[in-house]
Parts: sequence; C-alpha cells; structure tokens
Amino acid sequence: MSGGKSWRIGIAGLGTVGAGLLDILSRRPDFAPASGLAVVRGVSARSRSRPRPFDISNLPWFDDPVVLAASPEIDVFVELIGGSDGPAKAAVEAALKAGKPVVTANKALIAEHGAALAILAEDCGVPLLFEAAVMGGVPAVKIVRESLVGDEIQSIAGILNGTCNYILTEMEATGRSFADVLAEAQRLGYAEADPSTDVGGFDAAHKITILAALAFGCAPNFAATEVEGIEQVELLDIHMARDLGYRIKLVASADRSGDGALVRVHPSLAPLSHPLAQAGGALNALFIESSRTGRIFVQGPGAGAGPTAVAVAADIADVIAGVRRPVFQAPARSLPLSQPVDPSKMMCRAYLRFLVKDEPGVIAAVSETLAEAGVSIESFLQKPVEGAQGVPIVLTTHNVAESVLTAAVDRIASLAAVLDQPRMFRIARI
Amino acid sequence: MSGGKSWRIGIAGLGTVGAGLLDILSRRPDFAPASGLAVVRGVSARSRSRPRPFDISNLPWFDDPVVLAASPEIDVFVELIGGSDGPAKAAVEAALKAGKPVVTANKALIAEHGAALAILAEDCGVPLLFEAAVMGGVPAVKIVRESLVGDEIQSIAGILNGTCNYILTEMEATGRSFADVLAEAQRLGYAEADPSTDVGGFDAAHKITILAALAFGCAPNFAATEVEGIEQVELLDIHMARDLGYRIKLVASADRSGDGALVRVHPSLAPLSHPLAQAGGALNALFIESSRTGRIFVQGPGAGAGPTAVAVAADIADVIAGVRRPVFQAPARSLPLSQPVDPSKMMCRAYLRFLVKDEPGVIAAVSETLAEAGVSIESFLQKPVEGAQGVPIVLTTHNVAESVLTAAVDRIASLAAVLDQPRMFRIARI
Repeated sequence: MSGGKSWRIGIAGLGTVGAGLLDILSRRPDFAPASGLAVVRGVSARSRSRPRPFDISNLPWFDDPVVLAASPEIDVFVELIGGSDGPAKAAVEAALKAGKPVVTANKALIAEHGAALAILAEDCGVPLLFEAAVMGGVPAVKIVRESLVGDEIQSIAGILNGTCNYILTEMEATGRSFADVLAEAQRLGYAEADPSTDVGGFDAAHKITILAALAFGCAPNFAATEVEGIEQVELLDIHMARDLGYRIKLVASADRSGDGALVRVHPSLAPLSHPLAQAGGALNALFIESSRTGRIFVQGPGAGAGPTAVAVAADIADVIAGVRRPVFQAPARSLPLSQPVDPSKMMCRAYLRFLVKDEPGVIAAVSETLAEAGVSIESFLQKPVEGAQGVPIVLTTHNVAESVLTAAVDRIASLAAVLDQPRMFRIARI
Repeated sequence: MSGGKSWRIGIAGLGTVGAGLLDILSRRPDFAPASGLAVVRGVSARSRSRPRPFDISNLPWFDDPVVLAASPEIDVFVELIGGSDGPAKAAVEAALKAGKPVVTANKALIAEHGAALAILAEDCGVPLLFEAAVMGGVPAVKIVRESLVGDEIQSIAGILNGTCNYILTEMEATGRSFADVLAEAQRLGYAEADPSTDVGGFDAAHKITILAALAFGCAPNFAATEVEGIEQVELLDIHMARDLGYRIKLVASADRSGDGALVRVHPSLAPLSHPLAQAGGALNALFIESSRTGRIFVQGPGAGAGPTAVAVAADIADVIAGVRRPVFQAPARSLPLSQPVDPSKMMCRAYLRFLVKDEPGVIAAVSETLAEAGVSIESFLQKPVEGAQGVPIVLTTHNVAESVLTAAVDRIASLAAVLDQPRMFRIARI
C-alpha cells in the first residue's frame, strides 16, 4: 500500500507458462493491488531466435538464466525452466544468494531439493514460492500452507496429473488402448514426447511430495514417495472396474500415520459417484481432510498456460504484499524429514485381476489361495472377454494388510493356470 | 521469521466459533509458523458467568468489547460478536482506530459496512481480514482475493448457506414440508430461533456481496444484491424438478456484465449430475470462473465451530506473517461501488410451476400466454399429485429475457383457472 514502487521481474523460461505470464504482466502491470507495478526487466530462454507467438524484442535478454537470476536489474526471479537440476536449480540458487525472492513452477526442483533451497532462502531472508508447481490453477499450496495452518491435516488425496487423467478418461470413453490414446495425446501436445514423467506417476509424485511436506510440517522427501504409474492399467481393467461400480484414477495421496506419513501415487478405484471418479479429462481434483475443518474438495485445471501463469502471478503478488513465512511450515533448519510408514503395516481394500486358463479348478485355486492368506473377498466378477487369451477373473477384497495381500497375489501369480502378471489396484479410501 | 514476539489476541464473542478459536490457541499458540506465539490476552462476551464447556477464568475479562478492542493489552482484535451494527461495528472501529489489526467472521458487518471499514483500516494502516465470513472452512475469500489476482473473474456461483441446503436436502430425502424440516432444524440447533436471515437468503446475500466485491474490484454493495429465499420452495417443486432432472438449491451468484455486476441469491435448479446438485446437507460449494484459469470448484463445510475457527486462525496467521494488501482489491478510497445490472436485460432459463383448476382449456391458456410473450418451452410436465388442490403444471423454458418471462408469469397468475401464486425458479447457468 506504499504505492509507487516498481517490482522488476526476471523470467527464465519462455514456454507456454512464460508466455502466459508475459501476457498478464504486459496487460496489467498493476495486477498486484498491494503496491506499485510489476514490470518485466529481463528474460532468458534456451533460444533467443526461436519463433514465438509473442514479441520479446523489447525485453532485456540474458543468455544465461543464472546471470539473469543474480542481475541487479531485477527484484524478483521467476523460474519456468523446469527440471530438478541443471540451469533451473543453479538459477534459483543464484537468485536466492543474491537476496531476490524466487517464484517457481518447478515441482521436481521443490520435491527433490526443497529442503536445501528452503534453508538457503531463509538464510538469505527471501521468500521462495511455488504455488504453480502443484495443480496449476487450483491453489492447493496456499490452502494447505495458509488456510489450514490452524488445523491438523490428516490426509490428502487427489488427481494431480492431467495427462494421466486425460488418458484414462479417453480409454474409457473411446474403448481404445493405453498405447493408442497416449500416441494421440502426444500428437495433440497433451503428453510429452517422453511420457514417462507423467504416465509413470513421477509428476504426481513430485506434487504430492510437496503437499505432504506442507501438510505434515516436514521437509519434502521425494525418495520416500512410492510411485506406480498407469502403464499397467488395461482397457480390460477399466471395463471390469466399471462393472463393479468403480472408475480407475491415478491417485496421489498422503496420510499421516503415527509419527510418519505414507506418501504415494498409484492407480486407485473410486466409486462412480465419487467426486474423484467424476473429475474427467485433464481436470485435477483434491480432497484435504483435517481434524477441525473436515473435508475440503477442490477441482480445476491442473495445467495449461493460463492457469499456471495465474498461479505464478499470485506468488508474485504475495512477494509484493510482503508476506514473510517459512518456505514450509516451520523454519527450514528445524524441519524433520518426512518419515515413511512401513507399508506392510498399512491396510487396504483392493481390486485384483487375474487372467487365467479357461479350465476347471482355476477359480477354486485362486480363491483358496486368498482364503488361506486370510483375504476376504467382497465382490467377484468373471466374464468372457472377446479376443482375450484366457478368462479374466476380477475381485475386490475387504480391508486387509497390504503385505498379506501382495504375498497372496504373488502366490497366485505363480500358479500354472495364471497367464499374465496379476493386477492389483487399491480402492481409494478418501 | 524474526521469532520470539508474542502476539496478544483479544477475542470478543465466545460462542461456538470463539470456543473453537480458544481451543486452537491454547493447544498450539505457535500455530502460525512465521513468528512467535499467539496468546489470548483478553476476552469479552455478553455474559461472563454463563455456563460454558471451557474455562475462561484465567483469561482477562472485558465487559465492554469496545474497551477490549482498544486495549493496550492486545495486538490483534478478533470480532466474533456478529450483527452488522451495534457492539460488533463499534468494537471493530475502535480496534482499527487504535491501530490494531482486525479479524472478523462477521459477514453482515463486511457486506453492509465493508467500504467504510476498509477506508478506516487503510487510513490507520492495519489489516482487516474476514476469511471466516464466507464459507467457513473453505477459503473462498483467499482464493478470490489472492489466488486469482492475476486473472479476471467473470462469475461466481454457489451454495453459501448451509442451513438452507440442509433444509432442501432433508425435504427431498424425507418428503417432509419446509415448515416441518425447519422446525426440526431449529430443535437440533442447525437453524436459528429467528430463521429469516438464513431461509430468507440474507446470509447468503451477505456472503456473495463480499465475494463479488473482491472478484470485481468494487466496494461491497449489499443494497444492490437481489435476495430471494427458499420459503417459496414447496415439496411439490422439489419432486417436479427432480422428475425433470434437476435439484433445487439456493444459489448465490455474481456475474460480471459490462461495467456492472449482477449479484443475487435465489432458488435455482441444477442438473442432478451437477456438482452443486450433489452438494447435500450443510455443505457449501462454489464455482469461480475466470478468463485465464477457467473453472475452479471448491466444496466443504460452510459453518461450524471447527471450520470457522480455523478460518479465523488463518487470518491471524496472515496478520502475523505481515501481509499488507488493500482490504478489497484496490485502495479503499479508489473502489467504485459495485453497479447493479438492470435485471430486465438479463436472460435466463427458468422452471415455472402453476397450480391450476382441473378443467378443459387451462393448459391451452397457459401455453398460449407464454407463446404470445415469445417464451419458448423446453420441457413440460403435468401429473396428478395426491392431496393437492388442483393440478400442478410444470415447465422449463429456453433462454428468455427475464423481464419478458416475469411479465408472462404475471399474466398467467391473473387467469381465473390459476389457483396459487406461480413459482418461477431460474435454472443455474454455471
């Protein structure tokens, strides 16, 4: 509210999000109501001459993002390069060391190096903000970090990767295979040429690692996040799950458990009437459950130039508003590392799918193996599938220790009548 | 992050929200991670001796909230008294004039006097925060004010009053009348002894007035907010709407239109599959639509001691974090008053219900009147209802100017065969 001051912004990375941010800042340099203007005073990207749908000729150019980050010509550094290491990390470190607030959309950087960067930011006395790293246009970071600071968050679960959600939605809607839909998504630009970060679950894992750290007051511990992607989800599973009243989603979740947390990403079944099941296409959706507030649900576009640039702009506005908070929920040097929970102690309900030879005694063998292990079956579905080699058997279990369940599934996998690697997908708990 | 400082909190109003806040602050005075402790150093309420489920004997007592508000013993004043005038307003003004940040849950106060209070707060250089005034545990204010500050919000629509939503949900679930369910809600403490603020739509109107001001960069203008409650919604309408694929909800909405805004609260029909239709019981739910981000949907508990106290705590944490923003989206003295749009220029689709005599020619008369006015019918439903005097005719219209529609409905109301005041409920647009 002091008015008048110009905030000189440096932007490294001029992809779609950078373009969206340039558009916001050029149209409304006074978008942050607290004070003064935000004006771009430096840009950096891999190629200066690459054709772009917007003009950068009047913006000071820096070949090296690290030089831009530390330049006395800027007050706030915006990192939109991406990648957990390399120039993104070097530039963020340089900006912090030069005493400049940093705003980044880089989930890999924060999930993998957030603890060290938070110490650096706090030692240098400047904010490090990353709203755009999680859920694009949906302010998940702000809700967890600021709105629920007086509460105790128990669990978080949601759909954090739009590419996977798009692929699963399209598979169900069109009856096409994972590979077909992925190839189309790549053609349309919805999926990267190397899709493994998305479909392997790593992008969602980066995001839930960040949210878990904020929710549970820990340093982010990406190495402890369990990751399973959607490559093992077949059209068959989507159809069988639907027959049982479920939709398969890639769910990222973080559950407080004793002194630790279980943070993971895996395909999960949500009942068809469940809001996570109904979040289709590239939507992101998140449940946050806390002791006093209960359940909050948020949904919106999780990526894209517009939403992500708006999230970056919100962080710039927070810098301008003079917010001073620790990077995570406590001073960085005092943050415990998020402690993983022994998954063998976790209980779950699960969907199991076996492809078996069409011969007598197979169902008995499968169900006996489960019964011997103490796994109780909730529902059972066998139906012939045209063109399938063998017969799919699908069942859902009652609540059971995961270690017991995986051991039983391994034993079934070794039966001679079982033709394919069994599929085991958990049923979402939230 | 400077550490060590104690923030002395004064709380006026010790109802359920005050109790929830005392519980948070007594268990975790260090809940705000930015700096120091938040300790309660003064309380005030109507009666000191009233039996309470928590002990206040060790807290400094103030008979007069205005004295507490201005006391040199406190740094932050929390107003939980309620009411747009009287002691709540006097105490908030006293605190601001004494240079103390104010946190309030008082929607009536902010909706009706927000413009003047914002000027006072900014003149005195202190924040005035009111997250808890809207949607309790769901951070609607923060999302609109902070997260979307780089975007342009086009419209907001949602369920902002849990009491009305509970009543409508119970009517459908149990088949009981409005009066029956309201009486039960009052017995259970879900509805006030004087329910008119809730069921008349005024509580929701206060909330949407505040959100509209933040979303459109205006001063709140409660006088321009159109208000219609749920008293006219009969069980018959709930059932007929359902037959047509809709659920009736009390929807508060704000739409940008030219240089003005249409801000209103009225019963609306949402398709059964719509998230607003699926938000049952006391839940609150909100869509926010903006140019760059698209649609965000948030849902959660809109009231109650826990969620509302957490929202108050979040505002206290923001005060401690040193946030300096204008109270609304621009310095208060420069805020235009939200300009109402001429509703006659608005278009809508609507549900109409007429109770008519069971005699020949009535349907023809109704449909001719609509046709003459140029109102195009989308669906039509007539069915006998046991015990009803007369026959209900229900129809939904295509998009039509509201002024045309209301004129046609008025003409139909005057027909001799029409037994009851017609009902006209809009179909939700978002």
